[in-house]
Amino acid sequence: MSNLETLSEHRSFGGAVTFHEHRSEACDATMRFSVYAPPQAAEGPVPVLYYLAGLTSTEANFMEKAGAQRLASELGLMLVAPDTSPRGLDLPGEHDDYDLGSGAGFYIDATVEPWSRHYKTYSYVTGELPGIVESSFPARADARGIFGHSMGGHGALTIALKNPERYRSVSAFAPISAPTRAPWGKKIFSNYLGPDEESWREHDASELIKSRGAFPDGRTILVDQGTGDQFLEEQLYPGVLEEACAESGQPLEIRRHEGYDHGYYFISTFVDDHLRHHAAALNA
Amino acid sequence: MSNLETLSEHRSFGGAVTFHEHRSEACDATMRFSVYAPPQAAEGPVPVLYYLAGLTSTEANFMEKAGAQRLASELGLMLVAPDTSPRGLDLPGEHDDYDLGSGAGFYIDATVEPWSRHYKTYSYVTGELPGIVESSFPARADARGIFGHSMGGHGALTIALKNPERYRSVSAFAPISAPTRAPWGKKIFSNYLGPDEESWREHDASELIKSRGAFPDGRTILVDQGTGDQFLEEQLYPGVLEEACAESGQPLEIRRHEGYDHGYYFISTFVDDHLRHHAAALNA
Repeated sequence: MSNLETLSEHRSFGGAVTFHEHRSEACDATMRFSVYAPPQAAEGPVPVLYYLAGLTSTEANFMEKAGAQRLASELGLMLVAPDTSPRGLDLPGEHDDYDLGSGAGFYIDATVEPWSRHYKTYSYVTGELPGIVESSFPARADARGIFGHSMGGHGALTIALKNPERYRSVSAFAPISAPTRAPWGKKIFSNYLGPDEESWREHDASELIKSRGAFPDGRTILVDQGTGDQFLEEQLYPGVLEEACAESGQPLEIRRHEGYDHGYYFISTFVDDHLRHHAAALNA
Repeated sequence: MSNLETLSEHRSFGGAVTFHEHRSEACDATMRFSVYAPPQAAEGPVPVLYYLAGLTSTEANFMEKAGAQRLASELGLMLVAPDTSPRGLDLPGEHDDYDLGSGAGFYIDATVEPWSRHYKTYSYVTGELPGIVESSFPARADARGIFGHSMGGHGALTIALKNPERYRSVSAFAPISAPTRAPWGKKIFSNYLGPDEESWREHDASELIKSRGAFPDGRTILVDQGTGDQFLEEQLYPGVLEEACAESGQPLEIRRHEGYDHGYYFISTFVDDHLRHHAAALNA
């Protein structure tokens, strides 16, 4: 990975947060990501927990605001947070809306022009990124977990469901649980995938659970949701995920938190529980 | 305080982060501040720890990035973070430099025009703000602590030294410890206070310790400093603070952390120790 650049490095809880940029083959564009390497990484490969961020975020939000490094340094977890879309492009309409194009990769591979040339963020996150992380950092390839927030919660759930052998644990904060029903999902899918709604269902966590069934290893999905979340009613549909899990026998621990909103004050309050959920699976 | 507006509220660790704006009498301008009210505040007044931020910061940086709410919610500490200058003005040169005017109040009362009309951030922080906090929130008036970062570390040290009875505990991250020697301090003092360098010494923590002596109650000053701090050599002078404390018999616990820089990755790593330092004094 000779084109991997380190943009900055910051000591944090005995380890280091680093920011990186590289030319992505999957996206044929610049991609960025951040890494928290815990102190244990100095002694050998450690488990890796991938965090997928929400709309408008970058690779920085989680590292700056979630407060996850404290416990990750105790548990010996590496944290990796990719950016939410390719950068440095100027596709038609790419920078016009907060919920389409830049900052809104949606963790799927676009099939419709102009997005299909560069918006391959599913391939990037599931293939190219772990490859780089595992070849350039002391990261265990046999101990990956994935979680995310909102759009990234959708990403984490769908990616884990499609790749249960590649990710041993999964959780989400306020995920877009049924994007085929949500305005955000409909806008993204119609642009990136085209009008055939049947093709959208492969990118909807609730639909995937219904069609593919529960994780074969019996793992539990952990989901936190604030009841004061401004996007809860229109965009997130946790009830649909609950129904799909119940129908398929998929263990789901969904926790509703009175008054909490959609932001990082919510995430930081519960992030330690997610880290412990993943560490239990990854350190086993 | 009928003009106190609440701009937003976010549940956090069982309490809430709130953002506020009001017309400041001290500054004759708009001022903003943020509050973290821990769960214990629902049952009655709690101790308050004031955090003063560094150059270019606002009332948001600490709440978003320091990760202090987790332990504050356990210790029952209220956190209050004022903005770093008045807002909504357009004084000559106010918005030209990052280290003068907006974002750079320096926690002193300017005496030179045009700054002297509005840049009264010492009076604001030591008088008006605690008055508002103690009348509008469940905040104990007999249990105030103060800490800060960089410019705000200077602010916390000088304010505590001048008001030992009003603030029962003090600490700082990478403070500007001898601003009369530092480019940042010289620029601010010559603009806000004028060319008489003798008048600057009242606003220099190291000079104050030398001239006034140690805190009468024998309290320890806690200071954390990263050795990888990009401003360490030119701006911060922790060695001068150490000498002043040694000379005056002022207990100082200064901790140097290998490779840590000047930012919030550094602050968040050590913020828990500061909260415990203050809680020990404030809950006593």
